[in-house]
Amino acid sequence: MEKDFVFHNPTKIYFGRHAMTHLKDELENYGENILLAYGGGSIKKNGIYDEVIKALKETNKNIIEFSGIMPNPTLNKMLEGVELVKKHHIDLILAVGGGSVIDLAKGVAVSTYASGDAFERYWLNKEAVDNECVPVGAILTMAGTGSEMNGGSVITDEDRKIKVGRVFGSYNYPKFSILNPLFTLTVPRYQMLSGIFDAFSHLMEQYFSDTDNSVTDYLLESLMRALIDAADVAIEDKDNYEARSNIMWISTLALNTLTGLGKSQDWEVHAIEHQISAYTDCAHGMGLAAISPAYYRYIYPFGIDKFKRFAVNVFKIDAEGKSDEELALAGIDALEDFIVTHAMPNSLKKLGVPRELLSKIADSAALGGGYKKLTREDVYAILYNAYERK
Amino acid sequence: MEKDFVFHNPTKIYFGRHAMTHLKDELENYGENILLAYGGGSIKKNGIYDEVIKALKETNKNIIEFSGIMPNPTLNKMLEGVELVKKHHIDLILAVGGGSVIDLAKGVAVSTYASGDAFERYWLNKEAVDNECVPVGAILTMAGTGSEMNGGSVITDEDRKIKVGRVFGSYNYPKFSILNPLFTLTVPRYQMLSGIFDAFSHLMEQYFSDTDNSVTDYLLESLMRALIDAADVAIEDKDNYEARSNIMWISTLALNTLTGLGKSQDWEVHAIEHQISAYTDCAHGMGLAAISPAYYRYIYPFGIDKFKRFAVNVFKIDAEGKSDEELALAGIDALEDFIVTHAMPNSLKKLGVPRELLSKIADSAALGGGYKKLTREDVYAILYNAYERK
Repeated sequence: MEKDFVFHNPTKIYFGRHAMTHLKDELENYGENILLAYGGGSIKKNGIYDEVIKALKETNKNIIEFSGIMPNPTLNKMLEGVELVKKHHIDLILAVGGGSVIDLAKGVAVSTYASGDAFERYWLNKEAVDNECVPVGAILTMAGTGSEMNGGSVITDEDRKIKVGRVFGSYNYPKFSILNPLFTLTVPRYQMLSGIFDAFSHLMEQYFSDTDNSVTDYLLESLMRALIDAADVAIEDKDNYEARSNIMWISTLALNTLTGLGKSQDWEVHAIEHQISAYTDCAHGMGLAAISPAYYRYIYPFGIDKFKRFAVNVFKIDAEGKSDEELALAGIDALEDFIVTHAMPNSLKKLGVPRELLSKIADSAALGGGYKKLTREDVYAILYNAYERK
Repeated sequence: MEKDFVFHNPTKIYFGRHAMTHLKDELENYGENILLAYGGGSIKKNGIYDEVIKALKETNKNIIEFSGIMPNPTLNKMLEGVELVKKHHIDLILAVGGGSVIDLAKGVAVSTYASGDAFERYWLNKEAVDNECVPVGAILTMAGTGSEMNGGSVITDEDRKIKVGRVFGSYNYPKFSILNPLFTLTVPRYQMLSGIFDAFSHLMEQYFSDTDNSVTDYLLESLMRALIDAADVAIEDKDNYEARSNIMWISTLALNTLTGLGKSQDWEVHAIEHQISAYTDCAHGMGLAAISPAYYRYIYPFGIDKFKRFAVNVFKIDAEGKSDEELALAGIDALEDFIVTHAMPNSLKKLGVPRELLSKIADSAALGGGYKKLTREDVYAILYNAYERK
């Protein structure tokens, strides 16, 4: 653990088949005005909405609905939420949905009592938060982003075509999150896969940086391996509780800050994907899948030891008789096999990105990188390599 | 994650070479009367005491000293602390030391405002806590017990010869813990090893139970492997920061509840060791080392699949050509090799336990067990097998 760190994650997690039974107890901790934030209404079909309404009514809450939160939630939607919180003196924002809903809820929570333009100050300029946040509680219906146990909030300004993430401190983490793996059983296959790859990418982004041998790297390897095993089961047998519950908990751990402690991180795949999805509105996890093989083939020579470890410890590849380069590439091949086997797009063409967008995306992607600091030309080369693959 | 769980760990961790720079900021959150709890005075030799006093003075605190906290801290010492807290209207108990000091601090914290006999109610009868706890902050000087990020408090009633553990909820976790791996460099080799084996045993106690394939088991395997790797380095090169920092952080994670979520656990080795140390006052980790090989050889047939996984994933034993039994036993052999190689006692005789105590220990050990519910005769057989080994 070469780098000093502070770890503080006070979100209370209720996990399992009966996790919702704790909702009423939690609601007792807050005032009567509840903003019920959710997405396109799928929670009305699968019964979750009714369960939540019942708990809210039994605890005598005033329910203010805030629905229609979209994937890649927008600045305008966030401002709509801010107005509702102010108008109704909201005591708790109850976010029911996946990462988009929870991200937006946190955005509303920190923006309501901000002085000035909160998006400008907190997302674009990364200023320190100097106002109170409205408490957020979450009921997770889709695994992947990890938003249920962290301070992340990615908001898209659709006018300026920019998707900007901000990671807030524990003052803006959900106070509690209810994680019932059964709620994820009705998620369509494509979205489930997108969530799985999103979580897998979070683990890789934290793993592929640094040359030391930190505990964090061991944890990351174990979670990557566990996620592959669980995904293989869940894709064959979509009602398998053990696999679904593992996927849900891995997704939470993959981005609750624990798995990044004491080491540097990469996040360049996410930086590139953010720009792709700003232009195309693709499913986030699928955008990550489409870029990852090309990205890692581009950077592996600069961190070859870690890529060898990845091959052996995550994909269980036998190192015997392989050169360093062969072993490292075998790990990346296995990653691409995982993507292709489960019918995820391993190229931008399969994702549906028009070739003429590559240059624009390369222009706007933030430049960083774990093993190699990328230039605009590097990003373009990666996008070019990612465009078409068999 | 077959079992439902609640996870809530709000302890704020400051980790690393410069972790102490945060102490003053934390002290600002509490009133002026500080109970400074520590052990036999080693912190006065290595400079930690002076650093703490400086921070306390610079934040204008009244310092009430509470020193001489012993390994296997006693009920009488706890009652001495309770009197000090009451008399001086203590606002924060600052525990500087290893697990014994922090365990005792939590004991004082929960007992001070309890009605009736707190040890009787909370430790012996496991009653729900119905009073406020005094806040505890910790500065860790020895890795192993994990007390710095949980609600555990093991107290020994020396009159009745019983050592009783209670795990309190997050209301009695340290509010903050300062973990500087450099502070552990002066810990004598024997105590370092004891801490390492204590942490390793925590991981095994959580691992060897259940037949499912939970994420928690993957995490446990990765932490066991990481601990072996770090121990091997630290024992050769005792000033190696990476190894020492890994050991410290693994010890914390090994018992902060994360590594036991969603599955059943064992804890029988700890139950037996508690009785051994009630009679002999041995170093806790060494007591665990002396019992573990015999215990696991006794129970492995009842959980053979997990023991096979242990051999392969933790000790990297090649499964090729081995029967289930051979593979499982090879893992336990490797565990015993680890103990012997690092000059830890692999038998009760080497630990210094007189043979005539075995029967008494078997009489008083709590009966439980992960893969096999033990009888008094089972415990005696395990102690008998653990008595003398080459």
